[in-house]
Amino acid sequence: MNYSIIRYILGWIFNFQAFAMIFPCIVSVIYGENEVWVFLICIGICLGLGLLLTYKKPKNKVFFAREGFVAVALSWILLSISGALPFIFSGSITNVVDAVFETVSGFTTTGSSILADVESLPYSIIFWRSFTHWLGGMGVLVFLLMILPMNGGYQMFLMKAESPGPSVSKLVPKVRTTAMILYGIYMLMSIVQVVLLLIGHMPLFDALCTTFGSAGTGGFGIKNDSMASYSAYNQVVTGIFMMLFGINFNVYFMLLMKKPKQALKCEEARWYIGIIAASTAVITVFIANMYGSVGEALRHAFFQVSSIITTTGFATTNFDLWPAVPKGILVLLMLIGACAGSTGGGIKVSRLIILVKSIGKELKQIIHPKNITKIRLDGKVVEHDTVRSVNVFLVTYLLIFAVSVLLISIDNKDLVTNFTAVAATFNNIGPGLAQVGPIENFGCFSNFSTVILTIDMLAGRLEIFPLLILFMRDTWKRF
Amino acid sequence: MNYSIIRYILGWIFNFQAFAMIFPCIVSVIYGENEVWVFLICIGICLGLGLLLTYKKPKNKVFFAREGFVAVALSWILLSISGALPFIFSGSITNVVDAVFETVSGFTTTGSSILADVESLPYSIIFWRSFTHWLGGMGVLVFLLMILPMNGGYQMFLMKAESPGPSVSKLVPKVRTTAMILYGIYMLMSIVQVVLLLIGHMPLFDALCTTFGSAGTGGFGIKNDSMASYSAYNQVVTGIFMMLFGINFNVYFMLLMKKPKQALKCEEARWYIGIIAASTAVITVFIANMYGSVGEALRHAFFQVSSIITTTGFATTNFDLWPAVPKGILVLLMLIGACAGSTGGGIKVSRLIILVKSIGKELKQIIHPKNITKIRLDGKVVEHDTVRSVNVFLVTYLLIFAVSVLLISIDNKDLVTNFTAVAATFNNIGPGLAQVGPIENFGCFSNFSTVILTIDMLAGRLEIFPLLILFMRDTWKRF
Repeated sequence: MNYSIIRYILGWIFNFQAFAMIFPCIVSVIYGENEVWVFLICIGICLGLGLLLTYKKPKNKVFFAREGFVAVALSWILLSISGALPFIFSGSITNVVDAVFETVSGFTTTGSSILADVESLPYSIIFWRSFTHWLGGMGVLVFLLMILPMNGGYQMFLMKAESPGPSVSKLVPKVRTTAMILYGIYMLMSIVQVVLLLIGHMPLFDALCTTFGSAGTGGFGIKNDSMASYSAYNQVVTGIFMMLFGINFNVYFMLLMKKPKQALKCEEARWYIGIIAASTAVITVFIANMYGSVGEALRHAFFQVSSIITTTGFATTNFDLWPAVPKGILVLLMLIGACAGSTGGGIKVSRLIILVKSIGKELKQIIHPKNITKIRLDGKVVEHDTVRSVNVFLVTYLLIFAVSVLLISIDNKDLVTNFTAVAATFNNIGPGLAQVGPIENFGCFSNFSTVILTIDMLAGRLEIFPLLILFMRDTWKRF
Repeated sequence: MNYSIIRYILGWIFNFQAFAMIFPCIVSVIYGENEVWVFLICIGICLGLGLLLTYKKPKNKVFFAREGFVAVALSWILLSISGALPFIFSGSITNVVDAVFETVSGFTTTGSSILADVESLPYSIIFWRSFTHWLGGMGVLVFLLMILPMNGGYQMFLMKAESPGPSVSKLVPKVRTTAMILYGIYMLMSIVQVVLLLIGHMPLFDALCTTFGSAGTGGFGIKNDSMASYSAYNQVVTGIFMMLFGINFNVYFMLLMKKPKQALKCEEARWYIGIIAASTAVITVFIANMYGSVGEALRHAFFQVSSIITTTGFATTNFDLWPAVPKGILVLLMLIGACAGSTGGGIKVSRLIILVKSIGKELKQIIHPKNITKIRLDGKVVEHDTVRSVNVFLVTYLLIFAVSVLLISIDNKDLVTNFTAVAATFNNIGPGLAQVGPIENFGCFSNFSTVILTIDMLAGRLEIFPLLILFMRDTWKRF
């Protein structure tokens, strides 16, 4: 383990945090809130630690997958703890465990909240809460890759460790340029969404926070009823943008490069759209009689499907009251998640495709034992290593899921609450069903369970392995 | 596809069924019940069909994995339909769909029942219902392998297709002798259990049916309260024997061969015992205050754990009333299941071991990318093909599970009922939770859902692939 380079990267994480907090600080100035002091103090703390840790550049440049995983895992842990300071110092959340939960929920773009009454918070705190979604969505280390004054192989390992999906590819030969393109697309789409919401007469503050939530596929609402009180137009805009932010960003890159054919060929995006369309159609049929018109049912069905599969977590209606089939579909969508290379969470559609294709391959091999078939994605053979790591991911996922459900069961809530609470946090969605349904919150859990669910959110966002690596003895050996 | 050999094997299935029905027929004679005619008619039908189909020996001896899978799948489907005839003809079950469900539940050793009042049935019908467990437990085609007047490579393919677990090995070079040894051990252990139950003053009829249920890990109770009204001694005997029947029969073979060291080395059996011990201990802690003494709590905990992990499904208490942690553990045990090469169902402990070891392997590979590590079981390297097929099994399992839950959700029952109904049938356990809990039954489902759950039971017993193969077009091509 190359300790000095890890120290250096963590320093930059603090610098980044200090920079990010400038924005809520400005909000507090605009609204004339006392929280301006809270944010100034937090910025001071972060900058102090950051400058201290980055003062000395690391001489040792050795950097492998191991260092990448550890750097990413520790970065996210530190981000979460330092990001919780404004909540604690402002008195918005008094329990430290809850404050860290809320911050992790923000950065990991989960959107599960322990707050029962969001509307009573100061604007700057609401802003900070939603802003963490936007920062966490595309990735914090991907952001740092644009500015870190370092070169070398470390960049790809960092990007691989933080980016979601079974395999990560650079869009262009240089990692730094790739990071810039990704953030450029992200920024551009966010601006378009804000403008469209403003056209729908949403106040600027609401438009910004809603965009942060949908762009990062986070889902912190700024109203107690999430998105239910906004106009149908704004709901539809948000629904569509959630869906768009859940698509593999490679597709947008291809469009930018004026290669629409290649963009349309992306198997993952096509499956993803197909799943959304099919789920929306089936759910509409089952809930049609619960709403005034089929159109309204369709709107609610689409919004909820888009919100859940992208693991955003906004809601326009209390879907916990829906019949068993729609609820079952939503639980499945929770697990599937969005596309790899997007801001969404979950198992990812591309993993699902690889897994489903492996079934077909197995059946063919039973019938024709001598033929060798390969799994293909977008026409390319999927490497054996990728298939293996997808399988291992699934197993690890299930194991952590099961253990988490058991551990929070100690609170003795019903099975549906326990199961969907883990599903909602581990997949970075937000709301679950029953006692953690869309009109409920996570404040009902004991501190112990809150810690478990916090770990699940981090494990889900970082796709498990970076966190597990921290617990291996070999990781911490010097060379 | 070699159609003539499939026809021939299916003919023997009918002969087998005719032979098996002699036993309940004798019971009806002893108790002077009218069902003697029902069984005579059914025997006649089966024997007629059997003789017709086996009259001409197949000339074409080509037999591969494909033929093995198809033969096994069709055999089990025919067994289920012909086995349902006594229920229908005697008027014990009037709905045909329900009668097939009950029979499939018997042969697949599931033990889920659509009957609310078992005690009102004639003795011969109760006997037949429990006897199907015993027949299905060790495998019907494994039985036929002892008597089929044929030789050739077909035997291994049949055995592989019917026996549960990730890999099947012959105990001795000859498949026929292996089948005889397996049935010998099975018979011997069953006799010991009957004797021990008789010593505990259980009536002979009850002792036989209880043994059929525990030996096959089936779980049809012959009382409406399952095993609750039997003495503590008989409950403990049954609990221990369920556990013993869930152990890989290789272990008993090693003991017979006087190789106790090799028997003790069996990793799967050790994990299995370890999981039972740990689960029993934790559950006892959580339910201690619900029963008169810790000893009583321990007995109930052990019995239920042993019953659920072996996928038997007997109950001595209504575990649906237990707190969330014990219930959560039981749901997990439902999924894990017993050892490969035993009569139990579920995913199987050996698959779990391989999957867990693959996580450790992946983590090591991240830290030391250049080292190549292999997964070992019982000291031997697990072949890449086995690891792959275990992974594919898991994926297929999850997919069928999810689709089944969605389909039976159309009945609009709660999520826990739907989830555990599929878990209980797909893993061949019997009771689930909530509306399909241990004191409830499966009579509440629509015909559509009953059919889905029937398919799940067959898919679970045959470990999915034989059934899926039936739906591949290539399967049905002539050479």
